[in-house]
Parts: sequence; structure tokens; C-alpha cells
Amino acid sequence: MGPRWKGKGAEVKALADPISEIVRQFQSSLISSNSRGMLSGTNVFLKADAELTDLLNRACFGRPRVTSEKNEQWFQLSMEEAFYLQYSLKCITVVDYNDTELNNNELWKYMTSRKDKFPILVKAFSHLRSKNWVVRSGSQYGVDFVAYRHHPALVHSEYAVLVLSAQDGSANGRLRVWSDFHCTLRLCGSVAKTLLILDIEQQQSCAASPSCVDDYIVEERTITRWSPEQGREKK
Amino acid sequence: MGPRWKGKGAEVKALADPISEIVRQFQSSLISSNSRGMLSGTNVFLKADAELTDLLNRACFGRPRVTSEKNEQWFQLSMEEAFYLQYSLKCITVVDYNDTELNNNELWKYMTSRKDKFPILVKAFSHLRSKNWVVRSGSQYGVDFVAYRHHPALVHSEYAVLVLSAQDGSANGRLRVWSDFHCTLRLCGSVAKTLLILDIEQQQSCAASPSCVDDYIVEERTITRWSPEQGREKK
Repeated sequence: MGPRWKGKGAEVKALADPISEIVRQFQSSLISSNSRGMLSGTNVFLKADAELTDLLNRACFGRPRVTSEKNEQWFQLSMEEAFYLQYSLKCITVVDYNDTELNNNELWKYMTSRKDKFPILVKAFSHLRSKNWVVRSGSQYGVDFVAYRHHPALVHSEYAVLVLSAQDGSANGRLRVWSDFHCTLRLCGSVAKTLLILDIEQQQSCAASPSCVDDYIVEERTITRWSPEQGREKK
Repeated sequence: MGPRWKGKGAEVKALADPISEIVRQFQSSLISSNSRGMLSGTNVFLKADAELTDLLNRACFGRPRVTSEKNEQWFQLSMEEAFYLQYSLKCITVVDYNDTELNNNELWKYMTSRKDKFPILVKAFSHLRSKNWVVRSGSQYGVDFVAYRHHPALVHSEYAVLVLSAQDGSANGRLRVWSDFHCTLRLCGSVAKTLLILDIEQQQSCAASPSCVDDYIVEERTITRWSPEQGREKK
């Protein structure tokens, strides 16, 4: 199943404006503006001027949030997005409610304490983002992420992504029984997405610091229904 | 969500021809013909003459199977169907490949040894069938069963049924994590079915004989997405 572009000209538009270049611009803009993200619960909030708002929208990070303040746009980042921007792209600094900066280790400690699956989710997120996939929450489809070839305005998401790990029992709550497989594949089929399983092999059982995530190995598998006709001899 | 009848007149036709009456006729026909089902793997095969074929089709038990023998129609019953017909409706006798009759205890022993979830699945199947729901495999939708108000020719299936049990860990592989919930509900929504959870409370940890299933308690729960709008005050 290839990408499903939204309307005529979408593919040409996407090719002329690669995500890698948009993210590069977005990254430099954040660095030059010394951007700080405010940690709040399991989200990080980022204030954006007009230029940054445009870049956040184009790079597809965060969700714009309406506030009572005029002339100010806030974006709500997920933990995976915020961590990727601080740790991998090194373009924001996350601060807590005291306005104290959190270094990578502190941020890691906080986020892993809030979400058991965080190490493998952030690995999967970073893995796809570094390959210039646009990655969004997949909760609508009962998966961890959906992945787009370009901006969601131009193309439908191509992959429904489930992140699994053999080592981490608690994270591995999906696809243990056939009925779950059938349910997931049927749903993916009906929304024209391919099920992508990212199997994360953790080298160490504990994930004490973010650096150990760099050693995780990602195995990519797509899963589709097998149709008996495909196995038949051609006439 | 109410029943979705297939075309005009389907509801009137269904009301005039209740499933309870069809099953009663089917049951007497099987009893008077001394029907024997042949056990083979995880299925039971039943030979049917023209009258029985008609009743099997109308009562929606088994699937017709094409064989090389002329003028003979075979029906393939699932283990749940065969057990229900022998144990609950007392209208067939299952025999093994030696043509030896299996009594209820022997049949129970065989079927539970082939499928871990058999005790709770057959309880759920019998529970719905005894209420005159037509029950079919739900594997297409990643659930255990689908339930129809009447014959599938007249109405779409109304419920997607998952059978769970708190006691039996191995049976309980579904709906443990939110993403599985989201996936299942999204799929049920897109095929216009209501998710029905049958939670089977097993009184004893072991299911040594079929009679202990009679003591199982069935809790019925339907699960739907909650829409925030429903909680808002009416204007």
C-alpha cells in the first residue's frame, strides 16, 4: 500500500518541500530563540511567536492550544516530542514549575517515572522522526503512533505503529492473542494503513539514563493479512 | 444502537418466524432422526438430509461443507455449537473416529483439552443461544462471537462479543491496555456493532466436568465511547 495523497498536486508540493528541510529550519529557529518548554504533568508547553507557530505547524510538532492571553500562541508537546527536541535535536530546554532547567538525565528520570513505556516509546518516536516520518498519536486507532510521509494536510497516515518489547512484560500488552491481531489488522485495513510493529530490543533491563536508549535495537516489521489467493499458481 | 434490518420487510418477516420456534423444530428433527456428529479435530461434522439442511440453515448452526459425495450435505459445527447441541439441547450424540459415542463428560474432557478458553466460551455461547440470539464466530472482527437478533440474511449482527474471565489469566488476554480498548471500540464503531463483554465468574478454579459450568455467573456489559457532549447541560 503506497501513500495516499490528499488531492491533486499534493505529492508535487510535498516533494518540493521536504520534511527534513522544514525540521532543520524549525530546529535553528528554536535554537536561536533559546526556547524553553514548561513541564506540566505529562506535557510540555511551548510559547511561540508567529514564525515559530508557522514552523511548529509545518514540522508537525505539538498541538496549538487556545489560551486567554492575546497575541500568544502556546503549543502542547507530548513527552516523546519534548524529549526528542531537547535530547536529540538539542533545540529546547525543558524547565519545571520553578523555572529550573532540567538536564537530560533529570528529564529522563521524570518522564520514565510518569510512563512505564516511555523508554521504548521515545526510542520508536525518535527512530521514525530521524527518518523524517511525521509521527502523531495513534490513540484514535488503538495504536501507539501513526506515521505520515509528509504533513497530514497533504497525505493520509501510512502506518499504524505499535511499539513492543520482548523484555518489558508490562509494555507488551498487545498482540498476545489472535483475537487482538485480528481486531488490529481489520481496523488497519478499514482505515487503509499498514500495521508497523517496532520491536525494541533493550540491551539492559534497566533504563537508568537516556544514553542507554541509544543502544536499543529497533526491528521493523509490517504485518498484513495473508490471502490464500496470493499463494496460488498463476494461470 | 438498535438492530439494522436488511431491507424492507425484514423485521416483519423475522417477527413472524421467531428463532425460538425454528430452534425447537430443529431440535425435534435432530432427536427424531437420532443424529450423530462425527468428531474431527476441533470440529464436529453432521450429515444432513434436505429437511435437516433447511433447519440447520434457518437455525444458523454450523457451516455447509462441499464434499465429493452426491446427495449428501455435511455441516461443520464448532466445538461450542456441538457441545451445546449435545449437552444443552440433548439432540445430537457426538462420536469419535471409531464410531464410539462420547458422553457429556468425555466430550467435555476432549474439548477443554483442545482449547483452554473452552469452558468460558461455551458458557457464553450457551448463554446467548438460550436467549435466542444467533451466535456466530467473531474472528473477522477480532472478537470471540458476533450476535444477531435473527437470521444474518435478515439483520446485521448487533453485538461484537468478547468473553473474559477474571479467574483465568490465560483467557484474559484482551482489553488489558488502553490501546486495545481503543482499537476494539474504534473497529466496533466502524462496523456499527456494540461491544458486549461477557465476564464469566467461575465458581471453581478447575472445570473438571460440564456441570460446573452451570454454576458460572455471566455478567453482561456493553462498552461504548463516552462523548463529552453527552455530559453537558442542555440549553
